Amino acid sequence: MFDNCQVKLAARPVGEPRASDFSLENEPQRAPLSGEVAVRVRYISLDPAMRGWMDDRPSYLPPVELGQVMRATGIGEVIASEHPAFTPGDHVMGHLGVQHIAVLPAAAVSAVDPDLAPLEVQIGLLSTAGLTAYFGLTDIGKPEPGQTVVVSGAAGAVGSVVGQIARIRGCRVVGIAGGAAKSAYLTDDLGFDHGVDYKNEDVKAALQRSCPNGIDIFFDNVGNPILDIALKQLAMGARVVLCGAVSQYNNTGRVNGPENYMALIVNRAIMQGFIVFDFKNRYPEATRQLAEWWHLGMIRYRTDIAVGLGSFHSALTRLFSGQNDGKSVIRL
Amino acid sequence: MFDNCQVKLAARPVGEPRASDFSLENEPQRAPLSGEVAVRVRYISLDPAMRGWMDDRPSYLPPVELGQVMRATGIGEVIASEHPAFTPGDHVMGHLGVQHIAVLPAAAVSAVDPDLAPLEVQIGLLSTAGLTAYFGLTDIGKPEPGQTVVVSGAAGAVGSVVGQIARIRGCRVVGIAGGAAKSAYLTDDLGFDHGVDYKNEDVKAALQRSCPNGIDIFFDNVGNPILDIALKQLAMGARVVLCGAVSQYNNTGRVNGPENYMALIVNRAIMQGFIVFDFKNRYPEATRQLAEWWHLGMIRYRTDIAVGLGSFHSALTRLFSGQNDGKSVIRL
Repeated sequence: MFDNCQVKLAARPVGEPRASDFSLENEPQRAPLSGEVAVRVRYISLDPAMRGWMDDRPSYLPPVELGQVMRATGIGEVIASEHPAFTPGDHVMGHLGVQHIAVLPAAAVSAVDPDLAPLEVQIGLLSTAGLTAYFGLTDIGKPEPGQTVVVSGAAGAVGSVVGQIARIRGCRVVGIAGGAAKSAYLTDDLGFDHGVDYKNEDVKAALQRSCPNGIDIFFDNVGNPILDIALKQLAMGARVVLCGAVSQYNNTGRVNGPENYMALIVNRAIMQGFIVFDFKNRYPEATRQLAEWWHLGMIRYRTDIAVGLGSFHSALTRLFSGQNDGKSVIRL
Repeated sequence: MFDNCQVKLAARPVGEPRASDFSLENEPQRAPLSGEVAVRVRYISLDPAMRGWMDDRPSYLPPVELGQVMRATGIGEVIASEHPAFTPGDHVMGHLGVQHIAVLPAAAVSAVDPDLAPLEVQIGLLSTAGLTAYFGLTDIGKPEPGQTVVVSGAAGAVGSVVGQIARIRGCRVVGIAGGAAKSAYLTDDLGFDHGVDYKNEDVKAALQRSCPNGIDIFFDNVGNPILDIALKQLAMGARVVLCGAVSQYNNTGRVNGPENYMALIVNRAIMQGFIVFDFKNRYPEATRQLAEWWHLGMIRYRTDIAVGLGSFHSALTRLFSGQNDGKSVIRL
């Protein structure tokens, strides 16, 4: 038995999650059974996808049940192991949950090499967010040198990596983000060719200026209204990568579907969705490559760190309102 | 100079085209210049895409200008030729327009073998409609034996061929059409596994019953609300082929975009548009194959024939309201 604190889902949020939708509790964690490990959680990743897991709706993962520990990706240190693959002191990553001590099957975690990069970089760049950017751009977007890549949510945990990989692949990169500071960060710090501040600029006009030959790859993290604007400016044979639609996650009404979807016909274009888990057997390739680029300074990564389980709801709110400054993480 | 009658675009339609948007005129046609041919039009194809050509909006083809002969695909007989590839008596197909005599560059028409099939079959099955079905299903849909293919507008000029090719390819085929007679035609005459009558059935429930393992390929001729219903029932790795959206062509308000497009993410699915003209160099392959299937009785094709240029507007109205009974054609 281990002392434990955990954040449980207390109620299903309607629209934006409220503090009362979660409860901070103090229940001991049981010891690992045969085949399991116990992990002391060090970093918890906050991701837009968590909003979907709170709904009672089948998706690519089952919903979190009421009264269950909230699901989240984390990195931690093995403190007890009943599986030969892990010994105490090993670092692992997996769906550890929003809690101090996780007990789960060894098969549900993967080993983390703490020397590869600081853990606070690994929880973002070398975890779901960075892997999503890597496989979404390279395998679904399929960029070629000289092509124009536009990414929404460009200053975020996924978008910032998408844009930097596109630059490395020889593409022209335009990022869309909210606010002058984020837009400047894209060009000044991350090497994007153009930054578009959707809060203060006419996105349609800005894309027309910055993409005179149209958009070859649109990597969509946000959904409408930006998706519809981008559809109208696709180049022939364009690819639209559907990664998420953070604008719609807290939407209690109807989803705002892309009314310009028929631009896919005129432009012989493809719109394709993906889930990063499908690339699991290629995570090592991506992790190695991303870590190498990070060490070489070719990819920069910023982390927005909150401390302690008590910060869970406020950090989540910052994430959904776009106030986070880099990858949203809780340090325990 | 040749005596000629033609239907010209007199006004840009707002919503559904009215009779007054067209004018029937009687202007002589000039003789062909060097490199041109003069063609006596025998059959004119009426296609949903014609509605888009009436709008002053750039698309994959330029708009028809006011006062110009309305664009349409036709089959006719060469009556004068200033190009060595054609001699009077040859049959050709191309954008001959809604008129009796067309004069156009020889490069803009392709030869038709009148022995391949009756001209009234060739104008539909071996022309744009049949070729669209062939390339859209085989090259964009990529069906495999045992997969479930659902097609909307299934009793129409394109949809009926899509479903029959899918059957030939070993797929289970479900067609959606309007009215009990059309639905019965799909199963009784065309060999579809299921017909869904969207006017009298709950399409969502009918697809759930007829596609217990989900939809592998959805071939969309119609658009919403059926597109959104189909998106919710995609199988993993599904492909949505965007061929058109006849429900939206006369729409004067906002297009009804697919609010369920994020089902593409969960199902790792692709939505792809195409234009049949891109497959031009493979038309002979498709034409040969479709003609062979027709002669073997493996594909049936029904033609809804109106007679004379005076029937143009009423035939177009029948097409857009779904009252046509097979491929819509004007015989001159």
